[in-house]
Amino acid sequence: MLNFEYKNPTKIIFGKDTIGKLATEIPATEKILLLYGGGSIFKNGIYEQVKTALSSHNLIEFGGIPPNPEYEVLMKALEIIKSEKITYLLAVGGGSVIDGTKFLSAAALYKGENPWEILTKSIRTDVGMPFGTVLTLPATGSEMNSGAVITKAETHEKFGMGGPGLFPQFSILDPQVIHSIPPHQLANGITDAFTHVLEQYMTYPTQAFLQDRFSESILQTLIEVAPMIMENPFYHEAASNFMWCCTMALNGLIQKGVPTDWAIHAIGHELTALYGIDHARTLAIIAPSHYRYNFETKKKKLAQFAERVFGITTGSTEEKANAGIDKMEAFFHSLNINTRLSEYVEVYDGTAEKIAKRFTDRGWLGLGEYKTLSPSDVEKIVKMSY
Amino acid sequence: MLNFEYKNPTKIIFGKDTIGKLATEIPATEKILLLYGGGSIFKNGIYEQVKTALSSHNLIEFGGIPPNPEYEVLMKALEIIKSEKITYLLAVGGGSVIDGTKFLSAAALYKGENPWEILTKSIRTDVGMPFGTVLTLPATGSEMNSGAVITKAETHEKFGMGGPGLFPQFSILDPQVIHSIPPHQLANGITDAFTHVLEQYMTYPTQAFLQDRFSESILQTLIEVAPMIMENPFYHEAASNFMWCCTMALNGLIQKGVPTDWAIHAIGHELTALYGIDHARTLAIIAPSHYRYNFETKKKKLAQFAERVFGITTGSTEEKANAGIDKMEAFFHSLNINTRLSEYVEVYDGTAEKIAKRFTDRGWLGLGEYKTLSPSDVEKIVKMSY
Repeated sequence: MLNFEYKNPTKIIFGKDTIGKLATEIPATEKILLLYGGGSIFKNGIYEQVKTALSSHNLIEFGGIPPNPEYEVLMKALEIIKSEKITYLLAVGGGSVIDGTKFLSAAALYKGENPWEILTKSIRTDVGMPFGTVLTLPATGSEMNSGAVITKAETHEKFGMGGPGLFPQFSILDPQVIHSIPPHQLANGITDAFTHVLEQYMTYPTQAFLQDRFSESILQTLIEVAPMIMENPFYHEAASNFMWCCTMALNGLIQKGVPTDWAIHAIGHELTALYGIDHARTLAIIAPSHYRYNFETKKKKLAQFAERVFGITTGSTEEKANAGIDKMEAFFHSLNINTRLSEYVEVYDGTAEKIAKRFTDRGWLGLGEYKTLSPSDVEKIVKMSY
Repeated sequence: MLNFEYKNPTKIIFGKDTIGKLATEIPATEKILLLYGGGSIFKNGIYEQVKTALSSHNLIEFGGIPPNPEYEVLMKALEIIKSEKITYLLAVGGGSVIDGTKFLSAAALYKGENPWEILTKSIRTDVGMPFGTVLTLPATGSEMNSGAVITKAETHEKFGMGGPGLFPQFSILDPQVIHSIPPHQLANGITDAFTHVLEQYMTYPTQAFLQDRFSESILQTLIEVAPMIMENPFYHEAASNFMWCCTMALNGLIQKGVPTDWAIHAIGHELTALYGIDHARTLAIIAPSHYRYNFETKKKKLAQFAERVFGITTGSTEEKANAGIDKMEAFFHSLNINTRLSEYVEVYDGTAEKIAKRFTDRGWLGLGEYKTLSPSDVEKIVKMSY
């Protein structure tokens, strides 16, 4: 186990009919900017619940934060924060709205000249404007971590950012929100959470026995509840487990003391930037190829995954490891998630080279748990996924 | 899954050679009271490490906090806190020292007349004096939760206390501390953590799939590393997993959204109060009888435990459930932990009646996950464990 530090101060308020607790979580003295996305909160009743809970609060609104939250849009919200002297942010949405809110939390108190630097210079935020969240789409885990990914529409680039000042003060998780989520978005959420766990687990073998088992617990639970919620999103117990799995998959706990990979996300982000493919689907495209390409270093962990998560107990390490990759792919397929790039875009020739070049240009010369995957390796992985 | 709220702001600093980080975790402006127990920290080098790290800090000391921290002793420390105008507490020890420090954190800022009321009136502490810990004996999980158990020596009584103000600001967990822990204390620590998980897991079946699997993960890991550390406490990876298991077993996470039992602890505390039996051993005495006595309500979960933790896949639910209890008892025996009261005390006739009467006198009329176990049930459970 590697040395680690862990602190996660976000208060989770979990369960049925908990959105009303907003009324007491945000002090009445704050001036709130309510942030949301494309307007689904008007259809599913969440907007009404939020407004009712905050009817005695001083609140203005900013809607229209797009999936893959764009810097250009967020800068308009920042203007309002400054001109209206906002003191508290409330994200009502999924990962995109919450990530966008984290950028605003950082930018609102940023002392430098240009908040763009927070992204390009990887400036860590120690103190941000306080914010809370009401999660409407379980998937990214952003509701209980301090990281965010922001997109610059102009250059099709994604930038990570974060810092200990960017944990939500609270996050309200009412599993009833999944009632109105369309099946393809539910499938995306399951795939996203599943891959988050894989990125922190599927490395060379370590002796972090407990972290391994926690990761396997989340994977097993996602596999168990996925068909239940896909069939019936009103199955409250399944929805609850799904929602809590998504949070636990990326709240920092399972990554502590272990090596992590994250090459799938790094490559997947490029597919979203280039073709607008849903984030979760880019992960399902890249993961199988990544594991097949890096089979030698990962085969022991892949075999453990096959054995413990899918119950494959016979065969050599290699056979089990391969069966594990196949089962993972079959799981994505069971969610109607395609796993080949050619199933998403018609003309993809040159994609691999293009992504490799972008990595070279940025100086990203070593990805993966060993930091040894070169742009040429990335090119081969992407080609394998055609 | 039941609705829940979860917030745990303690910063964990985990790993080899991390005690030196004390120097930066406690502001130099604080006046520190260093609290410890019977003096083992002088033999294992931890005292030296702490003093070196804090050589530039303003620090005085209070040693001699006994196992099952006594109110009477702690009141002497409270006098020093007041007379010396202490502003920060540092617990260097195991669960007893940390629990005692929590009482002092609460008592130091208590506005009432008599801090004794914190215990007898179950007064919740919202703001305590800030404190940190250096854990020297993994077992109780006190290093990452906000609860404490305090003993009144005069009346042989144990009182629980807690509140959101009693989370440590930080806890330093260096697995090397287990090098010098005597085998019987290591066995106690393993048994304590194992039973903490059982109390939060072994209830009627629920559909908290993820919490179940997290609990099983901790149980499996403890079973896996127990023989390793009992044979060689210098096996760093095993020690690390053991230490992290103890923390995760009682930091609040696995109890969220599920019913919990805690009858084993309630009864076990009486055996410590009456006979001075080590806390962990009282749990090993009561657990098997408790599960056999409440077999009908717990048999489904016992069977799941047998299947997932011990790999018992054949037999009826009842057969698996019974095998699970047997395996649990065998695990305690493998640590040289006896599981019958008669193996600890010579004259135990009347113990069951005495404990039942104490529960009746205190008005504790409903224990367990259903809050239905009466003093008469308790009497029978204790008799079964003779």
